[in-house]
Amino acid sequence: MQKVRITQLKEFSLKAFRALGISENDAKIAADILVAADVRGIDSHGVARLPIYAKRLQLGLINKNPQIKVVRERPGMAVVDGDNGLGQVVSYQAMKLCMEKAKQTGTAAVAVKNSNHFGIGAYYAMMALEEDMIGVVATNTSPLMAPFGGKEPMLGTNPIALAVPAGSQYPVVLDMATSLVPRGKIEIYARKGEKLPLGWAIDKEGRPTDDPAEALKGTLLPMGGPKGYGLAMMVDLLAGVLAGAAFGGNIGSLFGDMDRSQNVGHFMMAIDVNSFQPIAEFKTTMDNYILSVKNSAPAEGVKEIFLPGEIEFVKGKGREDGFELNPVVVKNLLDLGKELGIVAADTTEETLFA
Amino acid sequence: MQKVRITQLKEFSLKAFRALGISENDAKIAADILVAADVRGIDSHGVARLPIYAKRLQLGLINKNPQIKVVRERPGMAVVDGDNGLGQVVSYQAMKLCMEKAKQTGTAAVAVKNSNHFGIGAYYAMMALEEDMIGVVATNTSPLMAPFGGKEPMLGTNPIALAVPAGSQYPVVLDMATSLVPRGKIEIYARKGEKLPLGWAIDKEGRPTDDPAEALKGTLLPMGGPKGYGLAMMVDLLAGVLAGAAFGGNIGSLFGDMDRSQNVGHFMMAIDVNSFQPIAEFKTTMDNYILSVKNSAPAEGVKEIFLPGEIEFVKGKGREDGFELNPVVVKNLLDLGKELGIVAADTTEETLFA
Repeated sequence: MQKVRITQLKEFSLKAFRALGISENDAKIAADILVAADVRGIDSHGVARLPIYAKRLQLGLINKNPQIKVVRERPGMAVVDGDNGLGQVVSYQAMKLCMEKAKQTGTAAVAVKNSNHFGIGAYYAMMALEEDMIGVVATNTSPLMAPFGGKEPMLGTNPIALAVPAGSQYPVVLDMATSLVPRGKIEIYARKGEKLPLGWAIDKEGRPTDDPAEALKGTLLPMGGPKGYGLAMMVDLLAGVLAGAAFGGNIGSLFGDMDRSQNVGHFMMAIDVNSFQPIAEFKTTMDNYILSVKNSAPAEGVKEIFLPGEIEFVKGKGREDGFELNPVVVKNLLDLGKELGIVAADTTEETLFA
Repeated sequence: MQKVRITQLKEFSLKAFRALGISENDAKIAADILVAADVRGIDSHGVARLPIYAKRLQLGLINKNPQIKVVRERPGMAVVDGDNGLGQVVSYQAMKLCMEKAKQTGTAAVAVKNSNHFGIGAYYAMMALEEDMIGVVATNTSPLMAPFGGKEPMLGTNPIALAVPAGSQYPVVLDMATSLVPRGKIEIYARKGEKLPLGWAIDKEGRPTDDPAEALKGTLLPMGGPKGYGLAMMVDLLAGVLAGAAFGGNIGSLFGDMDRSQNVGHFMMAIDVNSFQPIAEFKTTMDNYILSVKNSAPAEGVKEIFLPGEIEFVKGKGREDGFELNPVVVKNLLDLGKELGIVAADTTEETLFA
């Protein structure tokens, strides 16, 4: 496998977004957010997604030059209309606004409508860390889960991300879907021809299944049964209903709906730590907290206890000098690069990131 | 079993709190919140808990006459020092403050320190409904869960409650611990001598166990493995660390620590719906949302799909004309009533709520 550097992926993504007609400023933001997923080892949400964003931009399903507007506003809140722009660009601006407001009032919430798939929620939650704030970000997604007791896909995997600053330790960053596993994990089992653990998914009649093919025709199960169902719905009510975005079964699919926009909704909050207690004190307490958990006794057979987000920070460190990109992704990026005219015609998979 | 009316339980609780030296106003609040759990069918958190609150008040472990103070404040936030008062009284005041602030700014957050076990989080989240707001309430609790991969109890079951207003339908109310099951459920299995499903708990070496006795010596498992672990920690960071309350392994146990106060922390938010969109429009959308989920196809073998909180509303309706109180609880209340001198000396279990 080919080793690529993060800077190369960022440069490639930037060129691609530029070539797709995204403004210089927005292209930089989108490239940075996209590649941040690769940095964190969330390969499913990184440059691997560039081709689908490109396709949606080319088809006009994402607005390359959105007029992002604040449509309602009070000191501690806003509703942002993303004008069907790239989810990354819309969410970046919305989170910036949210933090500005939190600086004035101590806490703020921003709901976003007319947006698109925004990549990893952790990115926006972690924007708050730079301002010594706690960030909370949630988004609804296209429907993949049935209500608890149901069999129709009425809820997305609706992830929630939270980031809390620390001092010398890594910040604590949680970014989780409210389904027990992502759909992609079931696709992997299907390709390998392996059985699923029960509890991951149900078939189209709502019966528990260990057959990945049946599961892919059915729906994902929420984490913790009715609890994950409840959490997924709460995300949808905040990010979808409250924001005035699509919700429930009506959210367009990034991959599946190539004839309409997604109208994804987001909900974000910023909590200014300094308003609650001196930030230095907070960070010291956080460091102690983190170390007390880290150094607590591991269960039999466990080598090391990890804090939420720690594994991703460690992966990121490991990727500083480059990492091996999946050959399929390299191939797809090469094709995209040629189509957009951002790589020379004689470029090969071997020379793309040489 | 004896049938009691909610009004009888409220009257009894009110007299008990009065006799324990709680002011008239605070006693009314505490009684209302305590009995609200019985109304919702959460019997574990209702009048069954009156004896332990009484004991802690009598021992001076809960301050019967707290000077609840706002120690930090900005337009969209506050830190409240509960002065070791009853968790119910402290949280009620904190949520009132939170809603007042949200009315001014659109969204607000209040963190509470020096508080005590507050009963059901849903009560405070649902206070927001009366003001057409969305309520979010979380609390840390005494340690019962190990970190993911660990075996020492470093986290509570740290519940989260959210309440979202609707129109003609029941509001959507989620109130869930971040552990997969409560400790009480394992105690029930232990009493019955039944095996636990794997995944509920680990023994004191951190090994999966189906033996309830071993589980009770060990720790509870979070919902969804690392996800529930992450959520529990986030609750602790907001309700504990950010509030300046106890956190992690240091929170006093309601039942276990009869020599020190708990210093529980809470975190609450109010989101003013009208700031985001006209409330009438929101409620109509909510009703449609609720009905679309309710009327979606049930899985094979399922009769009815429930929205989060719906089962509790239905239970409440069923209890309007009284319900059967567990005889052990009746006995405990009778003993408490006699001790406090709020029932006649010749009262029996049969006549207590006759």
